[in-house]
Amino acid sequence: MIIVLKPEPDPDQLSNLMEWLKSLNLKINVSEGENSTILGLIGDTSVVDIELLRALDIVDAVKRVQEPYKNANRKFHPDDTVFTVRGVPIGNGTFNVIAGPCSIETEEQICAVAAAVKASGATLLRGGAFKPRTSPYAFQGLRQNGLKLLLEARDRTNLPVVTEIMDLSHIPLFEDVDVIQIGARNMQNFELLKEIGHLHKPVLLKRGLANSLKELLMSVEYIMSGGNDKIILCERGIRTFETATRNTLDLSAVPVLKKLTHLPVFIDPSHATGIAALVPPMAVAAAACGADGLMIEVHNDPPHALCDGAQSLTPEAFDGVMRAIEKVRPFAVRYDHGTPVMP
Amino acid sequence: MIIVLKPEPDPDQLSNLMEWLKSLNLKINVSEGENSTILGLIGDTSVVDIELLRALDIVDAVKRVQEPYKNANRKFHPDDTVFTVRGVPIGNGTFNVIAGPCSIETEEQICAVAAAVKASGATLLRGGAFKPRTSPYAFQGLRQNGLKLLLEARDRTNLPVVTEIMDLSHIPLFEDVDVIQIGARNMQNFELLKEIGHLHKPVLLKRGLANSLKELLMSVEYIMSGGNDKIILCERGIRTFETATRNTLDLSAVPVLKKLTHLPVFIDPSHATGIAALVPPMAVAAAACGADGLMIEVHNDPPHALCDGAQSLTPEAFDGVMRAIEKVRPFAVRYDHGTPVMP
Amino acid sequence: MIIVLKPEPDPDQLSNLMEWLKSLNLKINVSEGENSTILGLIGDTSVVDIELLRALDIVDAVKRVQEPYKNANRKFHPDDTVFTVRGVPIGNGTFNVIAGPCSIETEEQICAVAAAVKASGATLLRGGAFKPRTSPYAFQGLRQNGLKLLLEARDRTNLPVVTEIMDLSHIPLFEDVDVIQIGARNMQNFELLKEIGHLHKPVLLKRGLANSLKELLMSVEYIMSGGNDKIILCERGIRTFETATRNTLDLSAVPVLKKLTHLPVFIDPSHATGIAALVPPMAVAAAACGADGLMIEVHNDPPHALCDGAQSLTPEAFDGVMRAIEKVRPFAVRYDHGTPVMP
Amino acid sequence: MIIVLKPEPDPDQLSNLMEWLKSLNLKINVSEGENSTILGLIGDTSVVDIELLRALDIVDAVKRVQEPYKNANRKFHPDDTVFTVRGVPIGNGTFNVIAGPCSIETEEQICAVAAAVKASGATLLRGGAFKPRTSPYAFQGLRQNGLKLLLEARDRTNLPVVTEIMDLSHIPLFEDVDVIQIGARNMQNFELLKEIGHLHKPVLLKRGLANSLKELLMSVEYIMSGGNDKIILCERGIRTFETATRNTLDLSAVPVLKKLTHLPVFIDPSHATGIAALVPPMAVAAAACGADGLMIEVHNDPPHALCDGAQSLTPEAFDGVMRAIEKVRPFAVRYDHGTPVMP
Repeated sequence: MIIVLKPEPDPDQLSNLMEWLKSLNLKINVSEGENSTILGLIGDTSVVDIELLRALDIVDAVKRVQEPYKNANRKFHPDDTVFTVRGVPIGNGTFNVIAGPCSIETEEQICAVAAAVKASGATLLRGGAFKPRTSPYAFQGLRQNGLKLLLEARDRTNLPVVTEIMDLSHIPLFEDVDVIQIGARNMQNFELLKEIGHLHKPVLLKRGLANSLKELLMSVEYIMSGGNDKIILCERGIRTFETATRNTLDLSAVPVLKKLTHLPVFIDPSHATGIAALVPPMAVAAAACGADGLMIEVHNDPPHALCDGAQSLTPEAFDGVMRAIEKVRPFAVRYDHGTPVMP
Repeated sequence: MIIVLKPEPDPDQLSNLMEWLKSLNLKINVSEGENSTILGLIGDTSVVDIELLRALDIVDAVKRVQEPYKNANRKFHPDDTVFTVRGVPIGNGTFNVIAGPCSIETEEQICAVAAAVKASGATLLRGGAFKPRTSPYAFQGLRQNGLKLLLEARDRTNLPVVTEIMDLSHIPLFEDVDVIQIGARNMQNFELLKEIGHLHKPVLLKRGLANSLKELLMSVEYIMSGGNDKIILCERGIRTFETATRNTLDLSAVPVLKKLTHLPVFIDPSHATGIAALVPPMAVAAAACGADGLMIEVHNDPPHALCDGAQSLTPEAFDGVMRAIEKVRPFAVRYDHGTPVMP
Repeated sequence: MIIVLKPEPDPDQLSNLMEWLKSLNLKINVSEGENSTILGLIGDTSVVDIELLRALDIVDAVKRVQEPYKNANRKFHPDDTVFTVRGVPIGNGTFNVIAGPCSIETEEQICAVAAAVKASGATLLRGGAFKPRTSPYAFQGLRQNGLKLLLEARDRTNLPVVTEIMDLSHIPLFEDVDVIQIGARNMQNFELLKEIGHLHKPVLLKRGLANSLKELLMSVEYIMSGGNDKIILCERGIRTFETATRNTLDLSAVPVLKKLTHLPVFIDPSHATGIAALVPPMAVAAAACGADGLMIEVHNDPPHALCDGAQSLTPEAFDGVMRAIEKVRPFAVRYDHGTPVMP
Repeated sequence: MIIVLKPEPDPDQLSNLMEWLKSLNLKINVSEGENSTILGLIGDTSVVDIELLRALDIVDAVKRVQEPYKNANRKFHPDDTVFTVRGVPIGNGTFNVIAGPCSIETEEQICAVAAAVKASGATLLRGGAFKPRTSPYAFQGLRQNGLKLLLEARDRTNLPVVTEIMDLSHIPLFEDVDVIQIGARNMQNFELLKEIGHLHKPVLLKRGLANSLKELLMSVEYIMSGGNDKIILCERGIRTFETATRNTLDLSAVPVLKKLTHLPVFIDPSHATGIAALVPPMAVAAAACGADGLMIEVHNDPPHALCDGAQSLTPEAFDGVMRAIEKVRPFAVRYDHGTPVMP
């Protein structure tokens, strides 16, 4: 961390600052320039509150040299994280597709979609039981009953299941779920992140609509500092001024995150674009640039889906995507400890 | 609601669509154009899932004519909402300033700040007990103990208190709090909104960093549809590309919200700018354009604040702001049923 | 176009409006609803100023049903545009890579890079002679001399050349250039667009940093309405809050533009990401999702490039990208009249 | 400027870097840390290309300590810039309102509006002769004839005139114009900025829709480095995800720019909001927080304006705004060498 002092700092205040920094077990390198003095802090600066420093009268600017996240940082954990979900390996060269409907509606629906996506090659099943909807008048999900139907579909297909949690009080209901999804709107629900950090269950953490990749990794830090290191990161579009798509898919997140962290990186082209016809090309692009997996909405009857029908693929369209990915995957970009390797 | 059909729609699908719309108690006006047929839906369209319509094969576009929110809509409730918090009236021509520290730190600190801001004219006291922090290594608040200290400060000053809730499981802890704050990161925590909707306690709802004003009103709808209509809206900056300020204060939210809704509109210049020196001019601007109140961070020792010291005013600086507002207020823009009236 | 009237419109104003619309050769369908009356306009509404309508006292909202661009609209020109540049075909199933340095620096440099990128498979040569730089103290390009060196490199390699124009007064200098590039900052330099529209020379039009895809097509309309229809569209990143990359590459622009227009769509991963290590994965992703071509910065000595060295590939790295694309291309998404077709 | 080196840098490359920096007349302070070595550059670093440094193999990060703009920097020119336009003083405690129609349409129109706004207290007249319009089918302005009519209105009212230039080839036409406006879309038209820099005529420079305030000051640097230092900065809204207003007015730009630069800062609430009803409250807010002036669109018949009628005030509404500002101004925030002073 670098602290740039204002010209001619008050000596008492400077001495107080130096004392305080030393009390945090930091070493200080002083570099006197023509217009300003610079303090270089050496040691573990992740405990320093950067805003507090900025507020000091004698400080002009503070800049971090190192990232404020540690557990998720590839610098300190160079090897890719790999873990299994009911026997399905995730991370480091594997490629998994999580598919299923936005909402679980009926036993017939979720089981039919599960069978279809499995036949096409999906390795995990998604389905929403608790649904975050902008309008209180929209369908809110089947909740507990939805979870039961999802587990029923798992029993029939043996696909591990991924489903979203909306509040930490629901954690007990998710005991049998294989991967707990934390949605974009909850990426900075820190109370929830802390609780999830104490579980030993894989988590799929979606990037918030207005959150930077560094903030995503800070949210990971909440989970990992609790002891849970089985985390899948998922980019699902950010909010921009463009209205041709529901959000703007930030596909560069794949190589950026691969460099910054050792965790697996998935892409959700369904929520990112919001338009079914755009999902297949973006799914292929994500696979080609080396994402570790995809999350895709599939519904057996999109026009009558109770939510997000507009972005759901039919099982037939999904099968087309899976066939395309099968062809592209052998020639996809790979990553060696975060560095892209051309096919 | 207007549905634009694609050219030459399949007659069976069209007939199914018409049946379904009629089953929702909507009347349909058909308007045949040269290139496209348009259906105008008449009745209560807030129950229609617009995404579902968009997904239909025969539909080219769907446009809302009316807003999807009802309880918060000024069209249906032309008069301004006014309510009292421990005897303090809020809304419709009143002007209230909520002031206090970002975090409650000690009894001395919160009581000293409370006394100071009261002396300067603040009418409500803020103070964070549960703190949403980007980093798990930053100070997380005194939690229950913080709430106790806040109530102690209320006892001494008689200022009603406003403090942020971070999870619905904490609701019982907030029983004695006067106004529950829902922070920007929880604006779309729908489970929390629903629970808060069943309370009879005033709520301060902050706009999310990436949320439109219409989405803010949809979140209001979650609370109001539960029966709770004592809601203060608070603009606190949105996320943009500009980095000179922490967020971008969207002050136009004042006249826009005044037109769309009958609820009181507050501005938080501290979080919006993130820089103490910018708070006074933006506070004056907010008062001048007719906001119903302000939320301002004040700390007796900003450089040593445990969070957000960089944006906190000293009690002296806060007093200067209050004196300025006192002078500007008589000449501020007012709103008559949402229409701006020049002084 | 649909006009939603306010409740109980003034009859005289309504009658004036109807007269005026008829004078524009538009037919009007009136649809009376419970709360509002809707006028559907039939005919060529691209001449109607939508803002003017919105300003009328009796009008509540105006919504376009049809796009305001015609020449670039795939609805009216379903077949892909194809044209040749010095014999190199562009568009509809072809794939071209435009490569070269950000700035032309010396004859040795531009000729060496040209030879290298040609050997790797580039089909057009780029090189900046006039450089838009944020700072007046940064290198501004060799200007006329740069153009000469670029043409010299073309003579040696026979690669057609693409270079950016910065002002319409420079048009005569670009007479021998094969493709005139209009940069992101000039996407809405309408005087320049009009002049370029009167030339018979291919144009590469970059999307502005804050411009929607529809605005890009409106800028195309400026060029095409002058008679010039040889236009390559180029997505090069938009400005968002994310700072991990210089801009955010909006790769969904490929399928979106393919649907909306018949013009070829290129991707520039160098400017979009601003970081050399991110260019190869994004180039592969762009090829995989069916872009018609790429624009990539290559420099023989990136660390000593006079501009944008941070985003330039070495000739070796560029060769790796070209080999990767060669492998991926047979399995890339294709478009049939704008509809994605899986491989 | 601070250069953070990667761990264990190659000694030859490091030595080359040090040589090169010294050749730029910079002194170098070396600070060796535990994980990284930091070079502090002392001297005039505005000539250093920061991107070039970032591209070096041995460099991890480069951070500026000082702003890259000099002429516009308040640090080097602490006193406010003041200049006169046809005898009207601008800057440092003065307050000027530039008012008039979006487009000049007829002699009657521009002269009537000019007389009206003067009567209400406007001190400069605006009117567009060359109009940047998104659509080529929209009204493009009267061009040369428009300039003539504008000068005619000046003759009758003695109000100095402000009008937008769209291309540098038009400069001779603007000889009699008092203030040349550079629009948002041309903020980074560097060829135009350079030419304008060689004139001795006041300039009103609008912030681009996607440009940061620092970029605005870099564009100022283009003009000032040519010798022209009579520049008015104008904030007119930035592009964000919010659609309730046409753009998002960034009013914090007033105190931010006041701190960074000595130039006068104006606000254009008409273009920022795009909605006439929002202009008065935002005009009052801008005056209250200490802007040096306003630019407001006024039309004698907004519903029939040939452009941007939706955002134009009637002369009556404009008069109401001027009366309100008259009352608020004595209690507005002032700035003492960039520091806000409460009334």
